[in-house]
This record gives sequence, structure tokens and C-alpha cells, in this order.
Amino acid sequence: MTPISSPHPARLSRREALLFEAGIKLGGVFHQYLGMPVAPGTAASVARTIERAVALQPYVVDVRVRLDPSRGGPVGRGRFGYRYLVPEMLDVVVRLRDGPEEVEGRLRHRPDLRYPLMSVVRAGRAPPPRPTGAKGRRRR
Amino acid sequence: MTPISSPHPARLSRREALLFEAGIKLGGVFHQYLGMPVAPGTAASVARTIERAVALQPYVVDVRVRLDPSRGGPVGRGRFGYRYLVPEMLDVVVRLRDGPEEVEGRLRHRPDLRYPLMSVVRAGRAPPPRPTGAKGRRRR
Amino acid sequence: MTPISSPHPARLSRREALLFEAGIKLGGVFHQYLGMPVAPGTAASVARTIERAVALQPYVVDVRVRLDPSRGGPVGRGRFGYRYLVPEMLDVVVRLRDGPEEVEGRLRHRPDLRYPLMSVVRAGRAPPPRPTGAKGRRRR
Amino acid sequence: MTPISSPHPARLSRREALLFEAGIKLGGVFHQYLGMPVAPGTAASVARTIERAVALQPYVVDVRVRLDPSRGGPVGRGRFGYRYLVPEMLDVVVRLRDGPEEVEGRLRHRPDLRYPLMSVVRAGRAPPPRPTGAKGRRRR
Repeated sequence: MTPISSPHPARLSRREALLFEAGIKLGGVFHQYLGMPVAPGTAASVARTIERAVALQPYVVDVRVRLDPSRGGPVGRGRFGYRYLVPEMLDVVVRLRDGPEEVEGRLRHRPDLRYPLMSVVRAGRAPPPRPTGAKGRRRR
Repeated sequence: MTPISSPHPARLSRREALLFEAGIKLGGVFHQYLGMPVAPGTAASVARTIERAVALQPYVVDVRVRLDPSRGGPVGRGRFGYRYLVPEMLDVVVRLRDGPEEVEGRLRHRPDLRYPLMSVVRAGRAPPPRPTGAKGRRRR
Repeated sequence: MTPISSPHPARLSRREALLFEAGIKLGGVFHQYLGMPVAPGTAASVARTIERAVALQPYVVDVRVRLDPSRGGPVGRGRFGYRYLVPEMLDVVVRLRDGPEEVEGRLRHRPDLRYPLMSVVRAGRAPPPRPTGAKGRRRR
Repeated sequence: MTPISSPHPARLSRREALLFEAGIKLGGVFHQYLGMPVAPGTAASVARTIERAVALQPYVVDVRVRLDPSRGGPVGRGRFGYRYLVPEMLDVVVRLRDGPEEVEGRLRHRPDLRYPLMSVVRAGRAPPPRPTGAKGRRRR
């Protein structure tokens, strides 16, 4: 099904490999989108586009991006009245799955740490699939 | 209306200042989005998002982005079956206006030059506004 | 010498084409480097690397980058004790030349405008070359 | 010493947390530097700058970046005679440590997969420190 059984020279459990993958996704979001012009009227669509981009990457089953331009400090006036995407605006939750294992990671600026913290919110067995079809949809 | 009459210490005509601004927009697009995960199913929405971002910037009255993922070389298989945005995929046309002056710039990969060329397609007086309201602009 | 006489479909003077090129360089710097990890001990070397990258681009004869990490707001503690490059840190001056024409552009955050302003500092004839070889250029 | 004992709401072993961190670093490198102008004469210094940037990030004890511009496909001529950084050029090895645990990750383009693969090369106990002082230096 997939071209290779494991890409890792190291021996890793599925859970461990997923944790590595979760880091890749969050590290990538942080470094890809900083600097994009953004305004209240475009923030939601930028968030959707980031979600769709992350959703293409291996193991991702769900991703939710919130983008709050008002957290970007004072805004310019007139033709300078928009902002550039800064870490403070971002709140990203990504969920990855491999077989029964699931990992959920989050990127969120923490004012108390003065730092855009990436953390693992949850790591464990995925909940059993519901009897009906509605499962694993990507929230939009 | 705008906070300053001219941001430039140098003496520039409106047309000259617009040419500088057009370069800013195209240089920015090139360096902002390379590396974004992209696939045939997401390319159009990524293009729209880039358009909306550019449209926020000063003097922009129109912008059109085409993004052709198939120009990104061979694609991986299985879970690697998507691409990262590369310059070859991009075709960006941006139009700027200041008073009666208009400048249109373009970023497009030129295989003959092996180079993502940015060029000025048109610089001159804007066409007079049409009598009816249909301005057909793509300022999303 | 160069593969094409002019890349521009529009009729542009040398000075006008240089203004477009100056915008490309500054727009590119802004959108390329935001988010890089930076600290007081690395800022100078990051600035040199950006200079060398810009100096590769067409028409650039001089570029000077200053990068002040202390202008990035409060810093984290312990292992979070570094910053990510933000526009406030940057001061970039780039000089381009084509024949006798020269253009100098600058990117600098303007607190009064709450905006990373790009402007044209100077546009005109280059000063005649000095009789001796020491032209003091910073083209690294 | 550090402001918080663990940033993770999930229960993670040190080894697991390091795997997440290793992914962050490699995902970040990939998405930060694509598009930088680069040439044979600047590649080594760009690689050093990326190393120093990664070395600022939490848990990193060693990082080695190789950047081969010749793997970027055909180059332009004349004033277009340089390249932009593409994934094919990159080979990045990063080593992280937390207490006795160590993880080594790698980002390298794999032509057979047509994909910039990030993988875990090694995960396990760090070798015991040498009796003399020469330890844990960052290769440059």
C-alpha cells in the first residue's frame, strides 16, 4: 500500500514514529506562513488553506487552524492597514493516526512563556470507530 | 487619506513608485509560498489565498495567480503522493494603480531562461473607467 | 553578455527597471527570513548570510543588512531563550546599478507607521568611479 | 532551570518527547529556507547559518547541514546564473539530547521516493561522556 514499510533506520514504535511526524507538521506550519499578509476579512480563508495543506501530509487525519489577526499588535493606518502573520496569531491542532495509534499536537503562542509552544496534547489508542459512517472527517 | 504623502526620500514619479511596489509584491510571493504542500485538489484554493493576500498590499487593484502542480516534476507514491510548491508552478499577474498610473507585473518561470522571471508587462495610464458599474475586477 | 536585452514587455527606462528590481529584492528579503531562530550571538552571521544571498541577485552592487534581535520584544527563558526573526529587527539597504543608473532601496520597520516600510532612498546617476581601485564595495 | 517540567499535556517519555522535538526541527528547516538565493560560493556559509539557527532550538546538541547547489537542476546564464534553494540540495542531520536519551533525525531528498524524506536515524541512550573535556561540541 505504502511504498516502504518504515522510513526510519532506527527501531521505532508506531506511536514514536507518529510523534516525530507530528513535530514535522507543526514545525513546518510555523516556518512556512509567517509573513503572509492577513486581515480580519481574510484570516478564515488563510486558516482553511493551511489546513488543506497540512492535510496532504502523511498520517494526518484531522487539522484545525485558528488565525486571529487581532493578536498581531497594533495595525497600520490607511494603505498600511493590514498585518503580517506572526506566531501570536496561530493556534494549530493536528491529529495523526497510524493503525490504532493516534497523536495530537498543538502549536500555540504562550504569552506566559513568551514562546510559540508546540506540544503533544494526546498520544494513545484511537477511539474505536463509530458504528455508522461518520468518522475521521476533517473539520473545516 | 493615507498617512504620508510619499514614503520615499528619493524624488519619484507615481509611475516609478508603482514599479518599485510591483517588484515588492512579486518578490514577496516568490519567497513566501515556496514549500507549501500542494496537490491538484488544493491548487486552486491556494491560488485564491495568495491572491487575497497580495490584494491586501498597497496599490494593488487586481491580482491573478495560477498554480499548476503538474509542473513540479515527478510526484511521490502512496503517502508521499503530493508536491511542494516550486517556482515552476507559479504564474502571477499583479496590477497596481496610483491615480491615473497603472503598472502590471508578472512572475512566471521561463524554461528557456531556467529562471523564475519577474517582469513588467505594462506601465502607463489606466484605461478610463467604463460608464457602467461592471468593472470586472478580481479583487477578492 | 546577458541572455536577453530586456526581460520586460513594457517599455521601461533603465532607471525604471532598476526600481522594479529593487522592490523585488526587498520584498523577497521580508518574506524569506521571518521565523528564523536568532539570538544576539548569531545575528551578525545571519545578516552576512542574507547579504550574500541578495548579492547574488541581478543588478545588486551593494547590500547591507542589520539585524537587531533585541527589537523582537520580550524573550523566553531557559531553553526558550532565543527569538524568531521578526520585521522589527530588520534594516536592509540594497543598491542596484545598471550602466550609469543607480537605485538604493531600504527596508526598515517604522514604529510611527507600525509598518515594515520599503522605500527608495536614492535614484539617479552613479557617482563616477574613483581613479584608484578601492571602491569600498560590500559585495561579499 | 527550565521554566516548566514538561510542556506536554500528554504523558510522554523523554525519548518520545525528543522524537517530537526532532520532527519540529526538520520540518522547520524544510519550510524556512526554500527559495533562498544560493550559489557554489555561498552554499557553505548558508549551511553554517542554518546550523547555528537550529542549534538555538531546545534540546539540540549537534547539527550538520550540507547544501549542494549543483543538485538544483540546470542553472540560468549571465545575471540569472545562480539558483534558489530547493529540497534536493539539502542534507540535514540533527541530534537532540535530554538527560541520557538521544535522538538523531535526518532530512534528505530521496530520488527513489521523489520525496524530501525526514527520518529518525537513531534513538537511544547517549554514549557515556568521555573522561576528558572534549564532548558534545557542535560540528561546524
